[in-house]
Amino acid sequence: MPTTLITNISSLVTNDPSQGDGSPLGLLTDAAVVLDGEHIAWVGPAATAPAADTTYDAENRSAIPGFVDSHSHLVFAGDRTQEFNARMSGRSYSAGGIRTTVAATRAASDEVLEANVTRYLAEALRQGTTTFETKSGYGLTTHDEARALRIAARHTDEVTYLGAHIVSPDYADDPAAYVALVTGEMLDACAPHARWIDVFCEKGAFDGDQARAILTAGKAKGLHPRIHANQLSYGPGVQLAVELDAASADHCTHLTDADVDALAQGDTVATLLPGAEFSTRAEWPNARRLLDAGATVALSTDCNPGSSFTSSVPFCIALAVRDMGMTPDEALWSATAGGAAALRRDDVGRIAVGARADLALLDAPSHVHLAYRPGVPLVTRVWRRGARVA
Amino acid sequence: MPTTLITNISSLVTNDPSQGDGSPLGLLTDAAVVLDGEHIAWVGPAATAPAADTTYDAENRSAIPGFVDSHSHLVFAGDRTQEFNARMSGRSYSAGGIRTTVAATRAASDEVLEANVTRYLAEALRQGTTTFETKSGYGLTTHDEARALRIAARHTDEVTYLGAHIVSPDYADDPAAYVALVTGEMLDACAPHARWIDVFCEKGAFDGDQARAILTAGKAKGLHPRIHANQLSYGPGVQLAVELDAASADHCTHLTDADVDALAQGDTVATLLPGAEFSTRAEWPNARRLLDAGATVALSTDCNPGSSFTSSVPFCIALAVRDMGMTPDEALWSATAGGAAALRRDDVGRIAVGARADLALLDAPSHVHLAYRPGVPLVTRVWRRGARVA
Ligand SMILES: [Zn+2]
Ligand SMILES: [Zn+2]
Repeated sequence: MPTTLITNISSLVTNDPSQGDGSPLGLLTDAAVVLDGEHIAWVGPAATAPAADTTYDAENRSAIPGFVDSHSHLVFAGDRTQEFNARMSGRSYSAGGIRTTVAATRAASDEVLEANVTRYLAEALRQGTTTFETKSGYGLTTHDEARALRIAARHTDEVTYLGAHIVSPDYADDPAAYVALVTGEMLDACAPHARWIDVFCEKGAFDGDQARAILTAGKAKGLHPRIHANQLSYGPGVQLAVELDAASADHCTHLTDADVDALAQGDTVATLLPGAEFSTRAEWPNARRLLDAGATVALSTDCNPGSSFTSSVPFCIALAVRDMGMTPDEALWSATAGGAAALRRDDVGRIAVGARADLALLDAPSHVHLAYRPGVPLVTRVWRRGARVA
Repeated sequence: MPTTLITNISSLVTNDPSQGDGSPLGLLTDAAVVLDGEHIAWVGPAATAPAADTTYDAENRSAIPGFVDSHSHLVFAGDRTQEFNARMSGRSYSAGGIRTTVAATRAASDEVLEANVTRYLAEALRQGTTTFETKSGYGLTTHDEARALRIAARHTDEVTYLGAHIVSPDYADDPAAYVALVTGEMLDACAPHARWIDVFCEKGAFDGDQARAILTAGKAKGLHPRIHANQLSYGPGVQLAVELDAASADHCTHLTDADVDALAQGDTVATLLPGAEFSTRAEWPNARRLLDAGATVALSTDCNPGSSFTSSVPFCIALAVRDMGMTPDEALWSATAGGAAALRRDDVGRIAVGARADLALLDAPSHVHLAYRPGVPLVTRVWRRGARVA
């Protein structure tokens, strides 16, 4: 395999505490990295870097692990511009919400759905996201959910079955029958194409008992759970996530002290999605409270056409620092190593020997600029599995 | 002059109310634009567009006038990463504030300052900003202020003398002597290189009487006034701006009803700078109140290394929509035509025959996506004075 030396990195976030200053970020200055095929072969001071087949001069830019966006909803058709515009313009609008996207997604061809996934993943990649999870949830029939997962699986290993996004409009009068479908025939059709099972545990969607039934059925078919929990109101989602050893409880906006304690004591990551609070003008989740309690926090985009149509992890970092009480260091860690933890991965989200060669160069002297320079596209170069993709 | 036809524009903001739907944005769908040298020669439906020497297919992207960023501070050296990081991490830090940047700027060579201006203007241009104002204000000596303006004037016609940014630390014990310098020798040295004179009218900077003296002296030398007004507290700045027919009162965060009335009745534009409130966690200016009263509102970045280190007008649009009560349409208008009004220009900020050929293509079906997709770099192509620059 050809090797590549990336050198003259002003500041390198490794997320390896054995490096550099011993902080969680394992920050190295005047650093270099050697990529060997799809993996990282060497990390250290530029002055002592080994030779490689090719050399890339970072020209004193900083480098970070590629972002790990552990929560997105990219298999959809259409958008909801009118709904957004009306909401932000104070005009009334009979918004169909998720149902609008369900109808558009069901009506779309495989080619249209595939083109959309391809487009948004490319957009995310240009912004430094090298690992992405994505979900079904806009099909809500056995055929359409399985189709969404098959399409997603062509683009990422981190595919999540979210038949339980909302109760399908087709079952509005019989939610129990929809749960039976989601845990029965639909699960059977979907499980082969997914790694994860997710449920939107919220008033108006699925309650604690339904969520438990859905995730338990998924586990029995070899899927690992994650939950949309405690986004819009207090509820059982977070504690259920910890009880079932879900990899992540996502949103975590409305938490009791018992919820925070459960997250701090369990292995479930709290994934915060500030793009959703931004785009819906909702209350911010309190990252500081979770971090101070000892919980592991991830930061992701929730990219979807309804409540958070951003693919920009840097934007989420800037919001987390301004409005959620995270330091710039914590936000960077959560968007990389934190996302990896939320996907139970240790091969991504860090720059260390043997890890995947996924990294981004910033047109800035350090990662702090992602919060210090909000909105500015600072990601200038991206390597994924050792290949330069931007 | 060679002509260029840009066609297949899904949605075109012209800011010409005689076009399209008759709204202030003058929105055309399925549109085309012909550029003739540095100017726009034709605007209308793609189906009736005339032939041109070359054709550019917008492939159903939307187009907008290039952003007019009427407020930035780009002639500086160094940055203030540590100060920002400490503030956002809750650590105490003996921040020098503007003084830190003044010291770094004075110590920098012309080449370093010029390289910085070049870099940040290029960054802004890639994000769709085709007209930018920029200020001195980190020199605070006759030599260093004049030097800053000479450097700025090599890059833009919209150059502002801001010797009255703060009282120079060299005159801490004698502010009156500093005002005498700013209105005397320093003004004489600076006036030939600037179009505008500005003053930071605020507690701890310059009071109403000092601001009046400074702006009046500038007017006598042919400079036109604009004011940093009512940012951190209530004060005389806004009403002084209207009284002196300043082109713009900038910030306008703390306004009395009388201030709003004055702006609504005068010709002074209220320029709002949400990047500053974002980066300092300050109270948002109320754009809705100003718009409802009939004031003209501009939206700009305030790009500077201390309080708002963003060059991204799209980011400011997203903030203005979420947090300042602007609709997506109003925010777009304010960031283009509004900025032009704040610079008393009618050749930029709109797409109309005879206007400058400054426009940006968005990788989105309409301008609403600038707010709907926050943080995503949607600007994919930029023309400035008829030349494609991105
Ligand atoms: Zn979600
Ligand atoms: Zn300013």
